[in-house]
Amino acid sequence: MRADRIAKIVKGMEVQGVDQMIISDPSTIFYLTGRFVAPGFRLLVLYLDTRGGCTFFLNALQSDYADLHDDICWYQDSEDPIKRLAEKIREGATVAIDKNWSANFLLRLMREKSANYVLTGDIIDRIRMVKDEGEIQAMRETCAINQKVMARMFPMLRPGLTETEHRKELHELYCSYGAEGYNITPIVAYGQSCGYAHHKSDGTVLKSGDCVLIDTGARYHGYRSDMTRTVFYQSVSDEMREIYQIVYEAQMTAMAAVKPGARFCDIDRIGREIIAKHGYGEYFTHRIGHNIGIDGHEFPDVGAANEMEIQPGMCFSVEPGIYIPGKGGVRIEDLVVATPTGYECFYDYTKELQIIG
Amino acid sequence: MRADRIAKIVKGMEVQGVDQMIISDPSTIFYLTGRFVAPGFRLLVLYLDTRGGCTFFLNALQSDYADLHDDICWYQDSEDPIKRLAEKIREGATVAIDKNWSANFLLRLMREKSANYVLTGDIIDRIRMVKDEGEIQAMRETCAINQKVMARMFPMLRPGLTETEHRKELHELYCSYGAEGYNITPIVAYGQSCGYAHHKSDGTVLKSGDCVLIDTGARYHGYRSDMTRTVFYQSVSDEMREIYQIVYEAQMTAMAAVKPGARFCDIDRIGREIIAKHGYGEYFTHRIGHNIGIDGHEFPDVGAANEMEIQPGMCFSVEPGIYIPGKGGVRIEDLVVATPTGYECFYDYTKELQIIG
Repeated sequence: MRADRIAKIVKGMEVQGVDQMIISDPSTIFYLTGRFVAPGFRLLVLYLDTRGGCTFFLNALQSDYADLHDDICWYQDSEDPIKRLAEKIREGATVAIDKNWSANFLLRLMREKSANYVLTGDIIDRIRMVKDEGEIQAMRETCAINQKVMARMFPMLRPGLTETEHRKELHELYCSYGAEGYNITPIVAYGQSCGYAHHKSDGTVLKSGDCVLIDTGARYHGYRSDMTRTVFYQSVSDEMREIYQIVYEAQMTAMAAVKPGARFCDIDRIGREIIAKHGYGEYFTHRIGHNIGIDGHEFPDVGAANEMEIQPGMCFSVEPGIYIPGKGGVRIEDLVVATPTGYECFYDYTKELQIIG
Repeated sequence: MRADRIAKIVKGMEVQGVDQMIISDPSTIFYLTGRFVAPGFRLLVLYLDTRGGCTFFLNALQSDYADLHDDICWYQDSEDPIKRLAEKIREGATVAIDKNWSANFLLRLMREKSANYVLTGDIIDRIRMVKDEGEIQAMRETCAINQKVMARMFPMLRPGLTETEHRKELHELYCSYGAEGYNITPIVAYGQSCGYAHHKSDGTVLKSGDCVLIDTGARYHGYRSDMTRTVFYQSVSDEMREIYQIVYEAQMTAMAAVKPGARFCDIDRIGREIIAKHGYGEYFTHRIGHNIGIDGHEFPDVGAANEMEIQPGMCFSVEPGIYIPGKGGVRIEDLVVATPTGYECFYDYTKELQIIG
């Protein structure tokens, strides 16, 4: 158990007037213990109290998790663990609950003990959003695997290949480099499919002149990577070449603006202005990035509405794109960590326009 | 939208004194609409009212789902859909909530509108547990794929193969037969690994004389299959041969007892008594089966505590096993559907003792 991280959470609770907290989110439990738990339908939570108290509730069958912590409340399948948990809750206290905790537990707890149940909100998000050196090293490693996998994907391009066939190669590639699997379902898109920012890969067949967009990430030692590259198969049209150069300029310029004190909305604005200046503003249909770490999308985001200032240790994507329905599109995505003086990019994979095959 | 299934749910609500219901479970929404929804963090629920009223709440971005139903309440990202949902809830009504609905929505709804929030409990479970002819046909098809995949797995056995290498073959095999993927993470276990009922596949290397247990299932057209077979690699010890024959007898005899009016606990007892009679009772460490359909484990189960009578259309597993820690083990699992006069087994894959290689 990471006592330093628990202490930060307890301090956050005090600031926000929360007396007790029930942590059920597997990513936060990983953050605190270094282990992912998979309790299925059984209760597995960490209970915290600002007056002292830090107890895991674990089913006796889950003895695999006995090393999570030294204060474990073991319960049997034959008893109701919610009654045991309710004994910890102080009448009328403000009790914070993770947003994904299930109604199955929450409604039963509310029936057992009357208290002021609220959502945890951003107490833990604001701690997890700043990565420490160990986490940044884990991000470097998951990203190193990811760019090796990306490099293996483009040489596979051949006539007749379909998006789904091509995408299927990713799982084995990640496993061969020791990753636990995907970040989220990857996107492999050819030609017109690239005209939609979040295309779902299908039976589309590769054709000469297609843009080829691959957006993919790994899970490695609990941390997630994410990366997009777009190349062209055999040839590129003048229009797509122009679009590529605009996205490239937007991505490089927005990323170069990353430093402590810059606001997330500034990064979005800088990339968006470049794309708008060239007349493609309406075709850049999403925010420019998102934070990342143990989860693929973490708090906060890199968007126009987020005026939060960037702090050293924050990890996020910079991924502008232009998507022309019926024609094609381009996205370029890197991940960075803010440093005391600027940023470190986790990838050194080329972003120059490439024509393959 | 399946009006007949909605009508059954409304009737179940009336019987249990529930006025309104909020359905969020993707499997139940598939049961009612034929489509799986993946709303991510956005609200996507079906609201039902015994006084009439059957409305989907959908984010305007999710126009893919516009054909789910003719009564859809579209909301924008810029508004709080919980406020819109709260307008439907009658002050003081009894409102049933799916057990996996998240605290994020539930706590906010409770704050907006005071009502008697309860868990849906078994209202929908008791409807979904009896499959109609279309569902039984879907079960036949997912099981047909599953036994084809099982047949491809055993010929792969060769010296030096590891459990995880072997297990990796399954995903491609399922895809090649058109399945959407796995049921749940499959088990491939060799030798001593078979001594634990729910072994997690690891780097264990195949050795001559090992038992080889494969427990796997497919998802196909939304329905899940599940099957276990145990074979022996190159040779079998006298002890393992005896254990195999006992499990075989228990599986065949328990399955033969399936018919309407028999109780689930009877099926468990019949299999368990055979294993106990041969002195291995303490090594059969789980219930004999579970119901299955859209979810891999559905209500109810085939266990000693379940006195419910079997009805035609119920689909479930019969899967006794004997697991000897430090030595090995055997499980044999079939899926059946109860018919008006007995049962239909979804598999015709051999259960005779097989020595491979």
